[in-house]
Amino acid sequence: MIMEKINKTNDVHQLDYKEKSILAQEIRDTIIDIVSKNGGHLASNLGVVELTIALESVFDMTKDKIIWDVGHQCYVHKILNGRKDSLKTIRQLNGISGFPKTTESFTDCFNTGHSSTSISAAMGIAKARDLQKKDYHVISVIGDGALTGGMALEALNHVGCTQTKMIIILNDNEMSISKNISGMNTLLTKLRSKKNYRHTNQRGKEIISSIPAVGKVITQVVRKSKNAVKQVFIPGMYFEEIGIKYLGPVDGHNIEDMETLFKKAQDFEEPVLIHVLTKKGKGYTFAEENPSKFHGIGAFEKGTGEVLTHSKSYSHVFGDCLVKLASKNRKIVAITAAMRDGVGLKDFSKKYPNRFFDVGIAEEHALTFAAGLAKEGMIPVVSIYSSFYQRAYDQVIHDICMQNLPVILCVDRAGIVGNDGETHQGLFDLAFFKIVPNLTIMAPKNFAELERMLEFAISFKKPVVIRYPRGGELVGCSSLAPIKLGKAELLMSGEDYSIIGIGNSVLKGYQLALSLQEKGISCDVINVRFLKPLDSKMILKSIQKTKHVIVMEDGVILGGLSSSIKELLADYSLTDVSIQYYAYPDEFIKQGSCSQIEKKYGLDIASIEKTVLKEKR
Amino acid sequence: MIMEKINKTNDVHQLDYKEKSILAQEIRDTIIDIVSKNGGHLASNLGVVELTIALESVFDMTKDKIIWDVGHQCYVHKILNGRKDSLKTIRQLNGISGFPKTTESFTDCFNTGHSSTSISAAMGIAKARDLQKKDYHVISVIGDGALTGGMALEALNHVGCTQTKMIIILNDNEMSISKNISGMNTLLTKLRSKKNYRHTNQRGKEIISSIPAVGKVITQVVRKSKNAVKQVFIPGMYFEEIGIKYLGPVDGHNIEDMETLFKKAQDFEEPVLIHVLTKKGKGYTFAEENPSKFHGIGAFEKGTGEVLTHSKSYSHVFGDCLVKLASKNRKIVAITAAMRDGVGLKDFSKKYPNRFFDVGIAEEHALTFAAGLAKEGMIPVVSIYSSFYQRAYDQVIHDICMQNLPVILCVDRAGIVGNDGETHQGLFDLAFFKIVPNLTIMAPKNFAELERMLEFAISFKKPVVIRYPRGGELVGCSSLAPIKLGKAELLMSGEDYSIIGIGNSVLKGYQLALSLQEKGISCDVINVRFLKPLDSKMILKSIQKTKHVIVMEDGVILGGLSSSIKELLADYSLTDVSIQYYAYPDEFIKQGSCSQIEKKYGLDIASIEKTVLKEKR
Repeated sequence: MIMEKINKTNDVHQLDYKEKSILAQEIRDTIIDIVSKNGGHLASNLGVVELTIALESVFDMTKDKIIWDVGHQCYVHKILNGRKDSLKTIRQLNGISGFPKTTESFTDCFNTGHSSTSISAAMGIAKARDLQKKDYHVISVIGDGALTGGMALEALNHVGCTQTKMIIILNDNEMSISKNISGMNTLLTKLRSKKNYRHTNQRGKEIISSIPAVGKVITQVVRKSKNAVKQVFIPGMYFEEIGIKYLGPVDGHNIEDMETLFKKAQDFEEPVLIHVLTKKGKGYTFAEENPSKFHGIGAFEKGTGEVLTHSKSYSHVFGDCLVKLASKNRKIVAITAAMRDGVGLKDFSKKYPNRFFDVGIAEEHALTFAAGLAKEGMIPVVSIYSSFYQRAYDQVIHDICMQNLPVILCVDRAGIVGNDGETHQGLFDLAFFKIVPNLTIMAPKNFAELERMLEFAISFKKPVVIRYPRGGELVGCSSLAPIKLGKAELLMSGEDYSIIGIGNSVLKGYQLALSLQEKGISCDVINVRFLKPLDSKMILKSIQKTKHVIVMEDGVILGGLSSSIKELLADYSLTDVSIQYYAYPDEFIKQGSCSQIEKKYGLDIASIEKTVLKEKR
Repeated sequence: MIMEKINKTNDVHQLDYKEKSILAQEIRDTIIDIVSKNGGHLASNLGVVELTIALESVFDMTKDKIIWDVGHQCYVHKILNGRKDSLKTIRQLNGISGFPKTTESFTDCFNTGHSSTSISAAMGIAKARDLQKKDYHVISVIGDGALTGGMALEALNHVGCTQTKMIIILNDNEMSISKNISGMNTLLTKLRSKKNYRHTNQRGKEIISSIPAVGKVITQVVRKSKNAVKQVFIPGMYFEEIGIKYLGPVDGHNIEDMETLFKKAQDFEEPVLIHVLTKKGKGYTFAEENPSKFHGIGAFEKGTGEVLTHSKSYSHVFGDCLVKLASKNRKIVAITAAMRDGVGLKDFSKKYPNRFFDVGIAEEHALTFAAGLAKEGMIPVVSIYSSFYQRAYDQVIHDICMQNLPVILCVDRAGIVGNDGETHQGLFDLAFFKIVPNLTIMAPKNFAELERMLEFAISFKKPVVIRYPRGGELVGCSSLAPIKLGKAELLMSGEDYSIIGIGNSVLKGYQLALSLQEKGISCDVINVRFLKPLDSKMILKSIQKTKHVIVMEDGVILGGLSSSIKELLADYSLTDVSIQYYAYPDEFIKQGSCSQIEKKYGLDIASIEKTVLKEKR
């Protein structure tokens, strides 16, 4: 096992090319093995095995700094930097993270998670280096998908203008492009390498004179695949024009070729972009054939590639329901931002290709594009993960709500998402949406209610948020009153406690009430449904009756339902009321399974019941 | 007067070129006259007089739709579309807006205000048109500055990929480029026009074959001006490569040339970009010479270009103080996003050019770039207007606060900004920042306190917000206790009321207390200083003493200080307390002078005093 030689940072420097090739295979096997058990990001990590080995062979990881864009492709890096053994704990409670974390290793030099941040961060680090007259390399590794994100393009402009010395590795894993270009690949790489070598001492002024040729070839490829934003490719010419040297393309599975190019890149005093062609899922047939299935995946059967658990999720229910509604209403269009399958819009996209828009990693554009559609009479339904709405906050305020346009904002992965950890938890949306004027905010207690809320939203003709969690519904309550604007739903009546919940927390509250009932404690259970406008009347009536309130929500304690209830109490000067709030504290919540995290924060039903019974005197 | 012929939409269609030329001059005179009295955006409007006339001569404004990016250049459009007479009320309370408003005219087809939204909105409108099988043109008019904003680039990609039929007018008003290219201008325009004409019937497939030549010329210009992001220019080649036809450049002050090109653009079934070269401030010498002074300006003396009122602002104090601090601490760097002069960083940029970064209209990049700088030991001080922080919310959460990096976020133009109206009010920042873990939030009561807070922030080594309003300080209180984390400042002691204020509202509260004192009512006046962490101890002590609370803040009622006080009352079950909240309601607040708006919402000192005395029984 070559991997036995890899124990600490820079150990890979000692290997020859043959050993590195064996190491690549061993790393692949390890990653497939662990991800098949823990779940995680498989295809992207298999794609960068050789790239990571080549990068960390050439650069000195004790001082040079690599920023991994998005960061879910950092497993190989973690193996090469002291975490070979702890990899088996990846994404688990108290284990190592599935993303780079500065707290784990000095070689994780900037935390990532959301897309398109790495060029900005790398430029900041590079400028700090220059101002402090230090000497090291800064490398951003960014995928072609992440490069469609607006902030990456903003950063490219700034890097080019300021001629900041740094290296950008474009990890281009679009297979269509890879296939088309492979003929040109070796030729062009050699051409570049020779030219660079010859001119390095002349400060590389005219090195890339023949680049337009590359630009042209790539352009043709782009023209052939105009229908998918994911396949847009910004050709070398563009980088050159904004002041960034372009090297490549190079085969991202040929360690020797890459090392040659990386070594040359070290000599430049200007920004350099190296175009690396990789294959997502490389080396694991099932993942090569279906990289999007193996992008972020739960545990699966290694031998067959079959995912072990398949259960119906809110995303599926949303997607199925929207297909049905769209068949009856031609004004409905669906929009997402590079998460079509994740949000359940695959069927919709096949059934209504003209009414489906995947804008790529471009949340800002997605929302204002939706506003334009709504302005001219369409009913746009946007579905994006909760934590990515943070990227389009201004567009929701300024373009949608200020014009009161009927855009339906579906917030998927709201609440705790689990193993992806703090960058992906959807805990802030209730709070940051609540302060936006003209915005109505709903959350369903179960699948059936999501369907009714979607129907309501489509007829509502104003901006509306519907938020729901990752995964499945809780069961046990079949009540389903018709949806009315600003009206809560009373699921159970009692005398001792008012249990007030929203979304996923409602049926937790219901189950809690059933359990308390067995102990002779009777409860009102209120499904808030609308965080805004809040059904103050029903809530106040219940509180005045029971004088004991339990508030439950799948979000932060500041700004969401808990705050709304506190505001209500203050506004109505309610006295002699005891209240318990069950929400997440004002901190970033780390990884773990959803149930582990709930337990850790005392928010599972058993813990809540224990607290309730203890508080009861 | 040709303007007498311009009374309603499309009246400009009746004029010949000679009349249009006279009209242009009359419009210029009108705009200079009105802006010199009302204040407003002068240079940008003078730059687009001919462009607007040409556009609205060619297109049918009863059905075609123009989206003005940013929108502050819409005065000419408003004159041509039924608002010639109401222009004198522009930007005033109850007058017409300084930005496009769909509520004013059907020819204002999408509201704008923040930069870089127009391509997304136009594409949404164009797709809605196509899906509904309607037939009209959609035109986005976007400046070269706005094109550096990430969302504009996201939208360009999507437009190119989907080949959405629409017209993008690139209003390129960089004088450096204009000057350098002017020699090429006529030649190239004629060349393009001829070529287009010849090929239109062949579906324009190879029309722009000679574009690389243009690309090259422009590239050279860019290379000469590498230090300012504002001067980055994306050449025609780029647009062609992502699938957008490129026409131009054309002289943006030659109506006839532009009309020729606009007519040709109508024939395309694909997206077309027309590159128009204009001069900011055209026709008013003072504005031509100093376009940034005349960008957004208060009332001025027409004959001399002198601004009528000059008073010290928070922005000046911030800038001067930062220059002083930077002389003692070499780690301090300053960052802004195309608002250097507005936020008071002009002197800093001259004194410390290497430590100053104007990233252009690119708030997302600005914040993560700051995070990178902070990660490697620098102390980045970012200054951006409150409403533009909405553009970088995810970066504050995900890149700065999640890593607990010491970035200082100065929030300028917080609170009511006045005549720019609802798109620019800074009313949400307290609320949306409050829910972010690890973030400390301060607001100074006056200039001196801003200086102390900046000093505190620089030594604090954690993420921190300092928010302050547009314009000057209120005076009348010279107290200035040392800044301590989470400690409020007691400015006055009394028995009857607790007046609790933050930032700009503190001295309003102080003056209120002085006035009430004359009527025999004594007050505690608490300067909260830190919204987070809040000085619960001092506040609770005061409330328990007086039992009557007045909360004052320059922000929305939801989520800010008012919410914090309500939460406090609920958490401590304070009973028998009467509270009045003076904050802005949950709605978008329209234009007017700051004092008019305060009065309208009953938030000026006199109104508050009246309410307080009335409530007192």
